[in-house]
Amino acid sequence: MKLLRYGPAGQERPGILDSEGRIRDLSAHVTDIAGTVLSDEGLARLAAIDPASLPLVEGTPRYGACVAGTGKFICIGLNYSDHAAETGATVPPEPIIFMKATSAIVGPNDNIEIPRNSLKTDWEVELGVVIGKHAKYVSEADALDHVAGYAVINDVSERAFQTERHGQWTKGKSADTFGPTGPWLVTRDEVADPQNLKLWLEVNGKRVQDGTTATMVYGVRYLVSYLSQFMSLHPGDIISTGTPPGVGMGMKPPTYLKAGDTIRLGIEGLGEQNQTVVQG
Amino acid sequence: MKLLRYGPAGQERPGILDSEGRIRDLSAHVTDIAGTVLSDEGLARLAAIDPASLPLVEGTPRYGACVAGTGKFICIGLNYSDHAAETGATVPPEPIIFMKATSAIVGPNDNIEIPRNSLKTDWEVELGVVIGKHAKYVSEADALDHVAGYAVINDVSERAFQTERHGQWTKGKSADTFGPTGPWLVTRDEVADPQNLKLWLEVNGKRVQDGTTATMVYGVRYLVSYLSQFMSLHPGDIISTGTPPGVGMGMKPPTYLKAGDTIRLGIEGLGEQNQTVVQG
Repeated sequence: MKLLRYGPAGQERPGILDSEGRIRDLSAHVTDIAGTVLSDEGLARLAAIDPASLPLVEGTPRYGACVAGTGKFICIGLNYSDHAAETGATVPPEPIIFMKATSAIVGPNDNIEIPRNSLKTDWEVELGVVIGKHAKYVSEADALDHVAGYAVINDVSERAFQTERHGQWTKGKSADTFGPTGPWLVTRDEVADPQNLKLWLEVNGKRVQDGTTATMVYGVRYLVSYLSQFMSLHPGDIISTGTPPGVGMGMKPPTYLKAGDTIRLGIEGLGEQNQTVVQG
Repeated sequence: MKLLRYGPAGQERPGILDSEGRIRDLSAHVTDIAGTVLSDEGLARLAAIDPASLPLVEGTPRYGACVAGTGKFICIGLNYSDHAAETGATVPPEPIIFMKATSAIVGPNDNIEIPRNSLKTDWEVELGVVIGKHAKYVSEADALDHVAGYAVINDVSERAFQTERHGQWTKGKSADTFGPTGPWLVTRDEVADPQNLKLWLEVNGKRVQDGTTATMVYGVRYLVSYLSQFMSLHPGDIISTGTPPGVGMGMKPPTYLKAGDTIRLGIEGLGEQNQTVVQG
């Protein structure tokens, strides 16, 4: 299933994509795409509904972030060996973890706001993992049982805030609009292999990132298990699994976003995001 | 006012302390201590109620964390010059920011759980600042207008996870039970000067931390303004402002918590916490 949230910011309604790619309204069945709706049982109840029986949503509403009730937005740093190389870093012997403020979450096509006093706002296409079931001390073998599905994330980053303002990275990852999430939460049964997905990002029509999750250092299964040793993961929590090469700070010379730029990014089977950059 | 939440974990009800230190039930007036209840208008509505007119809560119920709906738990690192010295670090030229998982939040007297594979679980008494009103790009002059009040925090920390597991600090700050918060949210009108509060912590009856917020490097006013340049602060967000000297990792030899230890900590005017350490 491709689950989604549509409507004005703060007033999103739950929806599902039908076989023809049209939005159907789910609000007679669930209040939001959140919490227990993300459990195996919750998803099975939605899967039992024929989308054709649901009200068709007319027009082209705004997409909100595809999941609500996110308590934690956990990001993995330097998780593609070739991205680590472009930033001058080495691959860490264990995953690097940092948090993005949940207040940074926005819809997939909302504007990206350059923070005041920012000169180095950058992009990062990432595979997002949405937790469906509480995970604490879970094994790698059981890890995917705790995943509801996957979504496209743009882990927007301010590089000076992140690395030149005396720690820690969360400082450059948390501005409003720095976490476009969606368009869809694609349930895990529709993603045959999360470690074999193409992902890409274009700035002003030029492809700058063009990777595959096959080159991830620490895969989804490992990350869910690893993180669950350090903290509980809860339904709606998002893990953003790192970015492949092609970010602005890795270019020669480094190149950052400016007002008016357009960004398009996507992951195979998970849909696309389209953003316009504005000055905050 | 001293606002609080009482009852079993996950089923807390809002309450307020009366002039004799007894809990009065607030649930006829608000559903929780969260969101718009924390605004100046929300707090004024509660202040207009005579606590003696509210139902008296019998017995000695569990205290929950004193605030709900916390979207971000932001911590400040090395924010007391003497604590920085004991850990071998220098005072940073700008505040160090890291996030604690909101899933770490528990009541002030709940057990503290040593995570599996932990050898270095440590304590940190801290002044917690609870946001009452959305803050984005606010000045120092206006910063306290965005504060609902203050609370005691124990920023429990696993030092090996924090500093020996390849980044970032959030990895050692986020385990379940690592964020005891309360007993009370003391509204800011009752705290004449947040930079002149004694704070202390005892392990097994021995005082190990004995400081004052007067020696904070970056004060509350500065921190709220500073953070709001990097991210929006929302009602219910918590800023934990750093710890004075006396943590276990600073002892010679370093000393960490073990199952059966008891912890007692408090801040002048903000109440006390009492925890027992258990193995997770």
